[in-house]
Amino acid sequence: MAKNKLLFTPGPLNTTDTVRQAMMRDVGSRDTEFLEIVRKIRRRLLELGNVAGGGYEAVLMQGSGTFAVESVIGSILPRDGKLLVLINGAYGQRMAKIARTLDIATETRIFREARPVDPGETRNVLVHDPAVTHVAMVHCETTTGMINPVPEVGAVVKELGRVFLVDAMSSFGGIPIDLDASGIDFLVSSANKCIQGVPGFGLVLARRDLLTAAEGRARSLSLDLVAQWKGLESDGQFRFTPPTHVLLAFWQALQELEAEGGVRGRAARYTANQRVLMEGMTALGFRAYLAPEHQSCIITSFYYPSHPNFDFKTFYQRLSDQAFVIYPGKVSDAECFRIGTIGHLFPRDLRALVEAIGRTLETMHVDMSSATRV
Amino acid sequence: MAKNKLLFTPGPLNTTDTVRQAMMRDVGSRDTEFLEIVRKIRRRLLELGNVAGGGYEAVLMQGSGTFAVESVIGSILPRDGKLLVLINGAYGQRMAKIARTLDIATETRIFREARPVDPGETRNVLVHDPAVTHVAMVHCETTTGMINPVPEVGAVVKELGRVFLVDAMSSFGGIPIDLDASGIDFLVSSANKCIQGVPGFGLVLARRDLLTAAEGRARSLSLDLVAQWKGLESDGQFRFTPPTHVLLAFWQALQELEAEGGVRGRAARYTANQRVLMEGMTALGFRAYLAPEHQSCIITSFYYPSHPNFDFKTFYQRLSDQAFVIYPGKVSDAECFRIGTIGHLFPRDLRALVEAIGRTLETMHVDMSSATRV
Repeated sequence: MAKNKLLFTPGPLNTTDTVRQAMMRDVGSRDTEFLEIVRKIRRRLLELGNVAGGGYEAVLMQGSGTFAVESVIGSILPRDGKLLVLINGAYGQRMAKIARTLDIATETRIFREARPVDPGETRNVLVHDPAVTHVAMVHCETTTGMINPVPEVGAVVKELGRVFLVDAMSSFGGIPIDLDASGIDFLVSSANKCIQGVPGFGLVLARRDLLTAAEGRARSLSLDLVAQWKGLESDGQFRFTPPTHVLLAFWQALQELEAEGGVRGRAARYTANQRVLMEGMTALGFRAYLAPEHQSCIITSFYYPSHPNFDFKTFYQRLSDQAFVIYPGKVSDAECFRIGTIGHLFPRDLRALVEAIGRTLETMHVDMSSATRV
Repeated sequence: MAKNKLLFTPGPLNTTDTVRQAMMRDVGSRDTEFLEIVRKIRRRLLELGNVAGGGYEAVLMQGSGTFAVESVIGSILPRDGKLLVLINGAYGQRMAKIARTLDIATETRIFREARPVDPGETRNVLVHDPAVTHVAMVHCETTTGMINPVPEVGAVVKELGRVFLVDAMSSFGGIPIDLDASGIDFLVSSANKCIQGVPGFGLVLARRDLLTAAEGRARSLSLDLVAQWKGLESDGQFRFTPPTHVLLAFWQALQELEAEGGVRGRAARYTANQRVLMEGMTALGFRAYLAPEHQSCIITSFYYPSHPNFDFKTFYQRLSDQAFVIYPGKVSDAECFRIGTIGHLFPRDLRALVEAIGRTLETMHVDMSSATRV
């Protein structure tokens, strides 16, 4: 069996031994102890979104985070609804693709990947297109590492009376988000991002009155968010087999998040991780794709060095051989790679990674002082 | 932490320590070692269906087994297609519900729950309704424990030139199935049934030419079976985050299935389990819902004893307190409970369960000799 590697990715990422050990037993999906764990998970998620006071519900959905995004779009948009998707990366694009696949009227505004989604432009669209009923955007766009201005856009969306859907897949639990104060009606995230569980389900925080109003709209049986919520409310059970082991791990992960000081404590560690990474990479001669004011603590895109000896596949493989897994780039207009700073990683791990990158560049004979940076 | 209970259910069920231990590490979803495991899983699944020789593909789909069933129906049926669902229980009903939710023209034939699906009646429908393009049914209907005559129905479906979809959720890996010889074009099962993995994804064995022909038909992005297949074929990766830990467990489970003598070895154990259960329960005075010739080795429905002191909730809870988890009934026309005989269970476990049931009836003062059986 291969050794454990350090995963500097947007997920799946490193979890603690104790989170994985929570999976070492089998529980029945109707077992009272299991149902109690599901109930506690749902309550804790509302606390993380600062909406435990009321008005919101937490719903868990089997599958990857994308399944949960689709469950929101496909269950909430009415047949005569129209979705505006604000896009500055691949995950915004994906939301538009989901809506179009579901035959939902869809409008998009595409911003440059290096620029945040613009609240002013959002206002323009909403003022001039009264058919738009729902607005969707990504909080942290992991395509680049961009942190988008969710509260500012949310204020516009609410002022103009639309429903606001936010994909906070890679940020929820690692960056403080107050749903109500940000105007968020539906927020989607996943088990294996900043809460540091293992992958297997997505999670949705939803305004209760909008959930209730959406009953019967779903285009799918499996991904019917409202039916899933009603099932969990009625007898505490999932409608269809849940990933029981993954849920046991997630409850452990939520307790460890609390022990770290909650979202603020975790955000502090991720911010420290990103700072160590940024300082180290800058010292090596790398340049980040985003301006510092748009950069999240989640993941960072770096330009390839423009040195003839640099080859990403070799670079990636040599780092992987040293047990450091980085991530390919996804920016469409520049050659980049990405380094994630979330999961069970600490500043010492980022220092070790930067050292390994320095050694690897030497073995590749990439002289950064002569690498004209893009 | 509560002790491990024995799960006499249709899943999630008991797995081995070694299967769960395979989840004790984090791997990246693009890691070459992980991609190799996914490739080996897909190849082994074709072997289990006796179609490794060619013509079929194995596709894995995140979520519960129902998600995989929906991915087949929603990705394969053309817009002008019509699905005939042959129903004798809740899981057949669910297939019809999936199709109707997806706005697919759907016809059903509903048989009594105690009777198998009828090939002759299937022929009648297909002869008289040329609009039907696809036929769907359940192999082992866990509502009752019924084993349906898949090869006989498959012969009719093939003779009359329709596409045949089979939900073999609770039987694949535990009862030998030869897809090609049974006329099965699409077979769906799940990680946490007879292959004895943990829950988190479903699996589809599909005829390659029909997969290829269905490109672009999917009503969903997440549940697009053809796109999922193409993703796995192109770079070995899932399109969206896979449950990495669950997949590591599944590969271990497949190796343990082989060590047990493959599907035939496992079927022998499950058959021995069911025989011990049946003999023990009959000796206690219980009666099974199904006639012996329709009874699978997967799960068995027993009538409640008609004694005034019998109360299922009490019975269930007292058994659970002794670490034996049984399952409520689902038959619509009789009061029954169910006992599963799959998972990491052996004849000694069934003997222990029967003894516990006997003791529990005594503590409940249910005198089986005076319980007039329905």
